[in-house]
Amino acid sequence: MRGWVVVAGLGPGDDGMITSEVHDALEQATDIVGYIPYVRRINPREGLTLHETDNRVELERAAHALDMAAQGKRVVVVSSGDPGVFAMASALFEALEAGSPEWLALDIRILPGITAMLAAAARLGAPLGHDFCAINLSDNLKPWDLIETRLRLAGQAGFAMAFYNPRSKSRPHQFGRALEILREECGVDTLISFAKDVTKPGQTLTTVTLGNATADMADMRTVVIVGNKDTRKIGEFVYTPRRVE
Amino acid sequence: MRGWVVVAGLGPGDDGMITSEVHDALEQATDIVGYIPYVRRINPREGLTLHETDNRVELERAAHALDMAAQGKRVVVVSSGDPGVFAMASALFEALEAGSPEWLALDIRILPGITAMLAAAARLGAPLGHDFCAINLSDNLKPWDLIETRLRLAGQAGFAMAFYNPRSKSRPHQFGRALEILREECGVDTLISFAKDVTKPGQTLTTVTLGNATADMADMRTVVIVGNKDTRKIGEFVYTPRRVE
Repeated sequence: MRGWVVVAGLGPGDDGMITSEVHDALEQATDIVGYIPYVRRINPREGLTLHETDNRVELERAAHALDMAAQGKRVVVVSSGDPGVFAMASALFEALEAGSPEWLALDIRILPGITAMLAAAARLGAPLGHDFCAINLSDNLKPWDLIETRLRLAGQAGFAMAFYNPRSKSRPHQFGRALEILREECGVDTLISFAKDVTKPGQTLTTVTLGNATADMADMRTVVIVGNKDTRKIGEFVYTPRRVE
Repeated sequence: MRGWVVVAGLGPGDDGMITSEVHDALEQATDIVGYIPYVRRINPREGLTLHETDNRVELERAAHALDMAAQGKRVVVVSSGDPGVFAMASALFEALEAGSPEWLALDIRILPGITAMLAAAARLGAPLGHDFCAINLSDNLKPWDLIETRLRLAGQAGFAMAFYNPRSKSRPHQFGRALEILREECGVDTLISFAKDVTKPGQTLTTVTLGNATADMADMRTVVIVGNKDTRKIGEFVYTPRRVE
């Protein structure tokens, strides 16, 4: 049996946002690998082994998947959202680069999914309808100074912005600092939206101006979207026009 | 019968990248509205009217969809990729804002899809695995100077970048200018990937350095992805590490 590794995006939470090619890969798999809450989204069946691993062990998880594929298993690494956006795809290639040379001959595929910012944007309206950027606000893997620089330059560029991992218990003050920078660069009237548990039970969507935004509006389950100067509300929706004068 | 409008993302071309909630909406629709090649992806059936419209009539198309929903139709506006990324969702809200006040009471939903840059990233590996931006390089709806400014600031921020509509017959020289700016800001060794007809028959993926990139490598059917200084090749794949020092 020829093994393979697929890194598959399960979308933000609602099973209706899973693509059919991801469903197909899950049906063909012998082994599922991933962070505990994502693996728990997979229905158990005979012939399928579920491997739940903790957060922050992405490289070990990826190496485990590659090793099983080298032994002939059909492995799906499950990722929330899209695996290529702040998720497992880069970790897999890091493990590939650091690992056994024979892994380079493996059948490896990345199957995209609906990433949280695009699900949040859809539920809000179309706040990312013009040029935008996506920034991971966690400083686990990069210096905080670089995040501040990126926020300033993105504001000066007039990008709409989406933020992943805006705030955690271990770094409660940084998001407040990010809001200060955004107010300086984008102005207090720019709209900011907080999408918590997007597409999941208990989803909440909140939109305020940067002037009225406070750090406690975000946590690790929130995707934050900041508009550009033209972003506006129409009815219950938030959208960014396609045109900039 | 209560009408509704759904703006649905069909993904980049491969039907395996359509989500199940989009399939459900298409099954329930009475009317499909969209640009000709996207409407032609929908299977005809009894009770379903297909409305094909030309490119560059997004506002008229959106108003037509809203008007039909106000008459009780169940309308799906089909969009390539994700409707919220350089596609029909913003146009719908622009039409809503400019249109009949009674349209504000309509049931309007946006269903996300796999946008071209994320499909291209998945086929390439994980080039957008760190902070990135998405820029529409067409100057139909914004001044070219603003695009140049955004390219410079994005380079200075160290963002990976994805470009939509990089080049057309009506503006053949601008993409060459964009490459000049990128070489200045990012250096000639940064990797750039050209994904043409991604997920469609005849898909081609090409990765070179900025120093070796030429404008004729892109056309309107190409998504272009530029890495950051850490983006590298491993085997046949291109990826951007999660960590920045």
